[in-house]
Amino acid sequence: MQELTIVKVGGKVVEEAESLASLLRDFSSIKGPKILVHGGGRSATTMAQRLGVETKMVEGRRITDTAMLEVVTMVYGGLVNKSIVAGLQAHQQNALGMTGADMNIIRSKKRAKGTIDYGFVGDIEAVDAKGLSELLSAGAVPVIAPLTHDGQGQLLNTNADTMASAVATAMSEQYRVTLVFCFELPGVLLDINDHESVVELITPEKYRQLKMDGVVADGMIPKLDNSFAALHQGVAQIRITNTQGLAGGANSGTVLKL
Amino acid sequence: MQELTIVKVGGKVVEEAESLASLLRDFSSIKGPKILVHGGGRSATTMAQRLGVETKMVEGRRITDTAMLEVVTMVYGGLVNKSIVAGLQAHQQNALGMTGADMNIIRSKKRAKGTIDYGFVGDIEAVDAKGLSELLSAGAVPVIAPLTHDGQGQLLNTNADTMASAVATAMSEQYRVTLVFCFELPGVLLDINDHESVVELITPEKYRQLKMDGVVADGMIPKLDNSFAALHQGVAQIRITNTQGLAGGANSGTVLKL
Repeated sequence: MQELTIVKVGGKVVEEAESLASLLRDFSSIKGPKILVHGGGRSATTMAQRLGVETKMVEGRRITDTAMLEVVTMVYGGLVNKSIVAGLQAHQQNALGMTGADMNIIRSKKRAKGTIDYGFVGDIEAVDAKGLSELLSAGAVPVIAPLTHDGQGQLLNTNADTMASAVATAMSEQYRVTLVFCFELPGVLLDINDHESVVELITPEKYRQLKMDGVVADGMIPKLDNSFAALHQGVAQIRITNTQGLAGGANSGTVLKL
Repeated sequence: MQELTIVKVGGKVVEEAESLASLLRDFSSIKGPKILVHGGGRSATTMAQRLGVETKMVEGRRITDTAMLEVVTMVYGGLVNKSIVAGLQAHQQNALGMTGADMNIIRSKKRAKGTIDYGFVGDIEAVDAKGLSELLSAGAVPVIAPLTHDGQGQLLNTNADTMASAVATAMSEQYRVTLVFCFELPGVLLDINDHESVVELITPEKYRQLKMDGVVADGMIPKLDNSFAALHQGVAQIRITNTQGLAGGANSGTVLKL
């Protein structure tokens, strides 16, 4: 099976000039077929503020009304996505910016109103692995913004971590997929103040231990739950690292394995 | 030679819900390979105003400083482009939103500072006709926003009419190209107040006559000059029409021919 690297990069990395430059360089050094999935929440919040659109978050998830959907469509699909694409092109990467609507690569369903109405937020229903693999075979490097569509003309705001996992899972039928969650820290840290304290390997058993010890808490728990679910669905390997760890080798972060 | 239809659609058409719906339906009815190039200037001006970014125009061209480049990247590459893409997907069109940076389809050069400094504005240097024709062969419908890049990481604001003509010219080596300029009027009108007074055919000789008679004036002159230049460079046919005229047939606007 051919190797495929899927990198999910958080908002903070793509939104600061220095870390973006590092991402562009380090992502470009990854060999073989690859896909980048990016966030952009902080930029969206800033832009919303400038436009007088109120940002409402519930448990870390953005409530997306019509005005906020306009903001995220502009910021994720336009500003952040195209800056990354133009930046990767300067590194001779054949980057192609996409949302789930483009070539219908990721279709979702508007989340039903429960106790909370998240608004125009999509839960993924289908990833077109065949379409994506044709683009990869043609030498393209898809750069995916966290927006999907319902196939009826409606764009939907979609969590970038979830998108990356869904794409990784779908692509695992055809490729040996490494999914990399790239953020500002070098990996899962035993001591948040010590960047040398990277946990090199997390198995399900080790994960239970780390949760009990309180090393993994808060926002990391859904990320890791999500990651183990992807491993159970066929993703070969998951790494958590910063841009320097992208190309692999030594100091390449925390590896998650079953 | 295979037929290829390239439609350039003006800002006003894509920015109003009713005319956008009509565009999506009528563009979808075009048979065979096709490309859509869109503007979005009015939306950019509105968004700039909301963000407190001043719009400066010189002879109908937008001065694009850093703040305005951010606005047009968001509006053209994000808001307008992705709305069209999601809308076309609802019509079972395999739409793929792109800027010139995506897959490096259109590279340009920042316009040199003359008596006027246009800022981050690009003059087209290269269109990747091979790349575009591979996408068409794969069944994609490229939807191109009026942004290009310099290959060094810089996005550049680029006139949509010029982009459409450049793409049409480049694609003419491999296809018999019809370039359609789609705007809110049914064609070039003898009497601006009479939508029935469409001039059906304009040859270079007729064009001289229409200019002398003042029928064609102001903003139409660069458009038509541009069109005749494209015909001289191999484009098979140019039509000027509204969305209803897109699919061809009767009442399909003004045809320009050498």
